[in-house]
Amino acid sequence: MTQTLNDRIAGSFEQQAMMQTLGAQLADVQSGQVVIKAPILPGSRQQQGHGHAALSFAIGDTSAGYAALTVIPEDHEVVTAEIKINLLAPARGDLLIATGRVIKPGRKLVIVTAEVVARTGDQDKLVAILQGTMVPVPI
Amino acid sequence: MTQTLNDRIAGSFEQQAMMQTLGAQLADVQSGQVVIKAPILPGSRQQQGHGHAALSFAIGDTSAGYAALTVIPEDHEVVTAEIKINLLAPARGDLLIATGRVIKPGRKLVIVTAEVVARTGDQDKLVAILQGTMVPVPI
Amino acid sequence: MTQTLNDRIAGSFEQQAMMQTLGAQLADVQSGQVVIKAPILPGSRQQQGHGHAALSFAIGDTSAGYAALTVIPEDHEVVTAEIKINLLAPARGDLLIATGRVIKPGRKLVIVTAEVVARTGDQDKLVAILQGTMVPVPI
Amino acid sequence: MTQTLNDRIAGSFEQQAMMQTLGAQLADVQSGQVVIKAPILPGSRQQQGHGHAALSFAIGDTSAGYAALTVIPEDHEVVTAEIKINLLAPARGDLLIATGRVIKPGRKLVIVTAEVVARTGDQDKLVAILQGTMVPVPI
Repeated sequence: MTQTLNDRIAGSFEQQAMMQTLGAQLADVQSGQVVIKAPILPGSRQQQGHGHAALSFAIGDTSAGYAALTVIPEDHEVVTAEIKINLLAPARGDLLIATGRVIKPGRKLVIVTAEVVARTGDQDKLVAILQGTMVPVPI
Repeated sequence: MTQTLNDRIAGSFEQQAMMQTLGAQLADVQSGQVVIKAPILPGSRQQQGHGHAALSFAIGDTSAGYAALTVIPEDHEVVTAEIKINLLAPARGDLLIATGRVIKPGRKLVIVTAEVVARTGDQDKLVAILQGTMVPVPI
Repeated sequence: MTQTLNDRIAGSFEQQAMMQTLGAQLADVQSGQVVIKAPILPGSRQQQGHGHAALSFAIGDTSAGYAALTVIPEDHEVVTAEIKINLLAPARGDLLIATGRVIKPGRKLVIVTAEVVARTGDQDKLVAILQGTMVPVPI
Repeated sequence: MTQTLNDRIAGSFEQQAMMQTLGAQLADVQSGQVVIKAPILPGSRQQQGHGHAALSFAIGDTSAGYAALTVIPEDHEVVTAEIKINLLAPARGDLLIATGRVIKPGRKLVIVTAEVVARTGDQDKLVAILQGTMVPVPI
């Protein structure tokens, strides 16, 4: 992983105001895999007090999008064409950790998945899985 | 639509902190159909300055969930089992409007869709469609 | 709808051996909307004797793909990038009817939906809904 | 894996006429994971001569369904509530191999994934991934 790629993704991440609203942080960048962490802020909850589905979606989708960004030309960024989330368990714990991965790179489409776990102490519980399509677009 | 149902949904909506974080408002409740509106707040944006995919997801998913709530017994609420979003156009304009609809009610599963449009002046542009499954759970 | 477009789609449909295996027929072609009908053949069933999920998928996906074909340049065909199906009821009755529709045309991606109903006498019951993405590719 | 479970799944598989139509065979049954193989029969093709999306769907969905069956009570079977497929590459080669896996078992919902590869000689190429929800129902 070159400094350039790390910088490029960190720079883009900082411009995503939604990530700041949710308190999300870029935790790791590898070729084809990106990890994002987020607390379950009071303002990110649903009516039962757990993390809202949109929180798991937000970090899952974004981790998958940046994973795609690691495998496309530098003069492109990506947009989400579509993504599906299955929610497996309530999002409760100390924080959520999303790991996005590239399943198949491509010039026109990049197929991605993401997993979101809720960490409590040193225990991780899988709370969501995502499968989607990112589209590279020229900057 | 009885006052009771309106009250029940409004009461639940108010407890969804994520909706407040995003500035979302419950705009209309009919049997099997719920409308939610949200501005594109500075804190809800992605790196290009448009509404983040998670914003469209948040109000689309929530409108669909409350649509499901209108067709299940009063002593139940719903959780999202899964939902898929196709993003059709950048989310930019004066505000976003999500309309969730029940396609098939059921005791175990409620199948739903939602559309999200971006309104600019009096023009609506379709920016996302969602299709998913809600699960009624006893309160 | 020009004869040319009808012919083009009918010609492609005839080359889809899977459609013949399932007994499917092209029933209607409009700009942005295509209808395919299929019996529930003995060889298309699952273990309970209803139509297999893959039968509803096959005609739903294909109707959506041909709907996309009606809105793209003549020197292109389409492939399915992804599609999701929610199964609402057992596929039983006299025949299945899939109606595919274009939600958003595009040069790179065409967003589509499809509905599949089971017809018994003059009664139609919705058995599946699909939402997906078609990609135009040069012939 | 008890003989009982193998027998139960093999017995159900034999009753799926669609599997016979497609020439599919149950190749392996483990707790939480089932493998199905299928040739790309002349009658399973799309207009370009590759395996139809419905073929990959059929064996992917069915492998995932039987994977779910391995983790639920014996007096239940499963139906697909919803499943999404991303198609990554044309389905061409000697045969297709679908591996379905349980991601999260449950009394009401079983979350599953499947991968479909096309084998040519001793080379496997990933052609589709699926993510879905199975529902246990009393027999």
